[in-house]
Amino acid sequence: MKELVERLHPICRSMTGDGVRRTLAIIAETIPLELHEVPTGTRVLDWVVPQEWNITDAYVKDATGRRVIDFARSPLHVVGNSVPVSATMTLEELRPRLHTLPAQPDLVPYRTGYFKKDWGFCLSENALRELPEGEYEVRIDSTLADGHLTYGEHVVRGRTGEEVLISCHTCHPALANETLAGIAVAIELASRLAGRRPRLTYRFLFAPAALGAITWLADNRDTIGRITHGLVLACAGDPGRLTYKRSRRGDALIDRAAAHVLSTREHEVRDFVPFGYDERHFCSPGFNLPVGRLTRTPDGEFPEYHTSADDPSFVTQEAMEHTLAAVEEIVQVLEEERRYLNLEPYGEPWLGPRGLYGSPDIDQMAILWVLNLSDGEHSLLDIAVRSGIPFAGVSAAASALAKAGLLKEEGHVDRVQGGGPG
Amino acid sequence: MKELVERLHPICRSMTGDGVRRTLAIIAETIPLELHEVPTGTRVLDWVVPQEWNITDAYVKDATGRRVIDFARSPLHVVGNSVPVSATMTLEELRPRLHTLPAQPDLVPYRTGYFKKDWGFCLSENALRELPEGEYEVRIDSTLADGHLTYGEHVVRGRTGEEVLISCHTCHPALANETLAGIAVAIELASRLAGRRPRLTYRFLFAPAALGAITWLADNRDTIGRITHGLVLACAGDPGRLTYKRSRRGDALIDRAAAHVLSTREHEVRDFVPFGYDERHFCSPGFNLPVGRLTRTPDGEFPEYHTSADDPSFVTQEAMEHTLAAVEEIVQVLEEERRYLNLEPYGEPWLGPRGLYGSPDIDQMAILWVLNLSDGEHSLLDIAVRSGIPFAGVSAAASALAKAGLLKEEGHVDRVQGGGPG
Amino acid sequence: MKELVERLHPICRSMTGDGVRRTLAIIAETIPLELHEVPTGTRVLDWVVPQEWNITDAYVKDATGRRVIDFARSPLHVVGNSVPVSATMTLEELRPRLHTLPAQPDLVPYRTGYFKKDWGFCLSENALRELPEGEYEVRIDSTLADGHLTYGEHVVRGRTGEEVLISCHTCHPALANETLAGIAVAIELASRLAGRRPRLTYRFLFAPAALGAITWLADNRDTIGRITHGLVLACAGDPGRLTYKRSRRGDALIDRAAAHVLSTREHEVRDFVPFGYDERHFCSPGFNLPVGRLTRTPDGEFPEYHTSADDPSFVTQEAMEHTLAAVEEIVQVLEEERRYLNLEPYGEPWLGPRGLYGSPDIDQMAILWVLNLSDGEHSLLDIAVRSGIPFAGVSAAASALAKAGLLKEEGHVDRVQGGGPG
Repeated sequence: MKELVERLHPICRSMTGDGVRRTLAIIAETIPLELHEVPTGTRVLDWVVPQEWNITDAYVKDATGRRVIDFARSPLHVVGNSVPVSATMTLEELRPRLHTLPAQPDLVPYRTGYFKKDWGFCLSENALRELPEGEYEVRIDSTLADGHLTYGEHVVRGRTGEEVLISCHTCHPALANETLAGIAVAIELASRLAGRRPRLTYRFLFAPAALGAITWLADNRDTIGRITHGLVLACAGDPGRLTYKRSRRGDALIDRAAAHVLSTREHEVRDFVPFGYDERHFCSPGFNLPVGRLTRTPDGEFPEYHTSADDPSFVTQEAMEHTLAAVEEIVQVLEEERRYLNLEPYGEPWLGPRGLYGSPDIDQMAILWVLNLSDGEHSLLDIAVRSGIPFAGVSAAASALAKAGLLKEEGHVDRVQGGGPG
Repeated sequence: MKELVERLHPICRSMTGDGVRRTLAIIAETIPLELHEVPTGTRVLDWVVPQEWNITDAYVKDATGRRVIDFARSPLHVVGNSVPVSATMTLEELRPRLHTLPAQPDLVPYRTGYFKKDWGFCLSENALRELPEGEYEVRIDSTLADGHLTYGEHVVRGRTGEEVLISCHTCHPALANETLAGIAVAIELASRLAGRRPRLTYRFLFAPAALGAITWLADNRDTIGRITHGLVLACAGDPGRLTYKRSRRGDALIDRAAAHVLSTREHEVRDFVPFGYDERHFCSPGFNLPVGRLTRTPDGEFPEYHTSADDPSFVTQEAMEHTLAAVEEIVQVLEEERRYLNLEPYGEPWLGPRGLYGSPDIDQMAILWVLNLSDGEHSLLDIAVRSGIPFAGVSAAASALAKAGLLKEEGHVDRVQGGGPG
Repeated sequence: MKELVERLHPICRSMTGDGVRRTLAIIAETIPLELHEVPTGTRVLDWVVPQEWNITDAYVKDATGRRVIDFARSPLHVVGNSVPVSATMTLEELRPRLHTLPAQPDLVPYRTGYFKKDWGFCLSENALRELPEGEYEVRIDSTLADGHLTYGEHVVRGRTGEEVLISCHTCHPALANETLAGIAVAIELASRLAGRRPRLTYRFLFAPAALGAITWLADNRDTIGRITHGLVLACAGDPGRLTYKRSRRGDALIDRAAAHVLSTREHEVRDFVPFGYDERHFCSPGFNLPVGRLTRTPDGEFPEYHTSADDPSFVTQEAMEHTLAAVEEIVQVLEEERRYLNLEPYGEPWLGPRGLYGSPDIDQMAILWVLNLSDGEHSLLDIAVRSGIPFAGVSAAASALAKAGLLKEEGHVDRVQGGGPG
């Protein structure tokens, strides 16, 4: 995963354009993607797909011809969606177009400007201070023209049509933790699921933030009811603790599964708020999808956020694996969550003759909890939460009890959750 | 407000009598009052209006003819409702009739005795200690005779017949914070509302505690359902923090509004208990009105309570304005609480072209919260509580969104609250 | 109670056999018992009654003929249900059959082995260390033969057929706090109830743990619905604080009564877990009886647990009386819990003329709370919990109000509780 982050890092991504396409092409080397190209001007929900932005070069040259700001060094140096520019200006004239972070004088900020014709450069405060007064040659070789918004989907088919949406944004240039670590974790998850023939179908969405999600929602509006659970992945590789943000429903299975899985790790669970990543659109009241969000340190809460310091050195393989392990446990809950009925519910059944007593392979407490709460009302996750025993242990105990004829499976419970599409 | 407290302070008020009438007359100089005179012997709910008590003079004179206890100095010196007395007694005989506060030896207590024929004087413990043994002339020029119980009402008519009851007790003599500060705040609120043509109708009740409220309830029993919200005001001018006591329902709009408004101030919210001021009658199970109580330091919890130290110097204009500001914010919630339906609920709508993005006049977070939760289930107060944004900001955002055509008003929600008249 | 504990302590009890019968015979000296003898091989729910175990003597003799381990000194020295043995063995051969507590080297552990043909001895770690190598004579004079499982019932008939189950286990040898203190408290409670003609019927069950409860449940399966409340008593005499474990329902009247009664004492309330004493069977999902458990320090949480240190010196008369007082208060709630309707619900009624105001016999706050909450929705226990006034005071206030004609009794509320037999 770390290598992928390093490889994707230098690419200049934006809401539209070839940087997104190059990113999707690299993802598709590992997991096949279905690409969607939506033309400029297409109405998507309440929005319209804008013109496509591409850029080949950009710089500010000083009087000696030296590139003092150079897009070739990092795509962060140009404000996203900048219109083409070719001019000679004094530093005084240029200054309003130059963005720095005075409080973090070594770092280059990330800036973008959608939906207004504008341009600018980003550099470190220290670099700005070193620029002498005088004339500068300013050039942005960009195009804003009719084109497409591009997103990609990868689907791991399961035994049922119920779908789990795993969504990552693909629009930010050179932000390793904020954008790329989530993509890397999602790809690895998809690879692992491919070999398993899971119960649920897993739909991985790689789309630019906001308008990408909105476009996908517009494209899938009629079949959106198949999304039974979902996770937005971002900020997935920093050294901080895991943070789960509940879906708007608050008590969807994904919310309860994530809270249970995270309970054994250093973590934080937060209520839904209508801003952040694309959960804001998936959880708009008209869709109200059961989609939560998993990050490590949330957006805006680490000092490297949206700066040149969010580079591959900030992301560790270990952190991404830790994130992935949590996602896999959440997936296990989604896959295996079900209800049983105790077939010997009068007193505790006699476990010894059935080989269910004192065996080192069996969590005896899990056996007792599953028997006691399998009354048709409580699911395995309910039992795990109530007992404090990890879901995997509860699920294993239930399987052993079912094999011994003490439980009857009552079915899976994906849909038993508060709320629903509005 | 401070001036009014000072002016009302010396008057000898009791459950009945001319002190109450003089108080109401002074209130009526600022806001017109409808006076109600209910004759002695009238059955009011389970009670009977008692005889009217009036007093012109009372004193204890020592052997030299000096008034050592003198009603003319403060009405607190006579136990309320004392029967007439004219006698000469030794200090030893008089002592059981003399009430002091040994733990607060400088202060004169407030004492009253309804419904039993009795009499007595109040003085400071220090004054009592200075009285030499000997003979004293004791005189109370009072009358207990058929008359009336008097209360006053002031109504600010709104655009609807739904009423907000604002109730203050008028029966205690010379207690500035406990009785008069609430009256002053109520009058100022009435004056401000008069110029506004509010949505709701505001009924201000100035009545003696307990039997006044009971009489008003008896007089209004058939139309009590128009009381949609209510507040008892008392102890409104001391330096302590605001304390809201919930109605018996506990989750009426007035309860939720007050808790929200107070949440940005130093405050305490308490559950209903069936004692205190007239909320005990408004919230009796037969009426179960949605009437809460707003005080600063509650009755019995400040050392000046029911003593001569609860004089105008204990009450500040600043504290009464602070109380009034909270009441006004609560009134704003009652006036503006309503539900909207998001007309573009699929994904976030495109705010930029509608002038709702990045404008300094608009709380962007409030815009997002109102859009996300306006699903027909959540009111503006729900949104304010959930988001932590003050109600005024949420209401303003909703108005801007409705003006832009993104929301449809679903109506006010006065009646959506737990419980109801029993 | 302390004397009874001392008298019962030396008896060798097990799941079956004469030790249980002797224990029941001693109980029957104080309260009459109906004895039930259930034959070996009887199917009881999912289980089968095993063979009966009896033992007359057991020892390990050293080369000099000295009994180095001797059943006659304490029944703990033999593993419960040991098969007969007569052999000469080296210490090395014997060692796997010897159980000690290395961390508590002075104490003899309690061990038993049901449902497998096995044998062993228990001794202190220090005693084991003193045994020289060499030959030992090993003998257990026990029998495992068809017989019976024995349990006893004592019933205090009430005015109604609703039953309160008080259950104690009778199967552990020589454990004073864990087994015998609960029996002593139960007997004393039964004696006190006998003189009272209570409203509810009280069924005291003295049965071996697990299979005894299962057998009783099997015997009473068709009439189990008469059990309206229940308590398992164990660990009732140690110096620790009281601990109540909720029934599986969690909000049954017994749960709420116990939590209220314990709230005025140092205590802990715990949620149900499906292990512990016989509550695990009473609260199996098929029965789901409203049976909680009262202990002082719970099983496994005091160092004397299941060792020779749980002897009569660990149990105090004072602690058992403290437990009994709590049980008696819980019984008072079960007996007197009921609902009233306020007949003067409009405003507070006039208490003075009814002799209910200012009387030193009456808790004035209880009067106000009962009046305010007697709306048909709230029971006396609801009022006690809400007001923080002990149930006895609330019940007394309600009786006084009913006598004065202000309340009408709406009936008892045994059955108003969550859940029910599955």
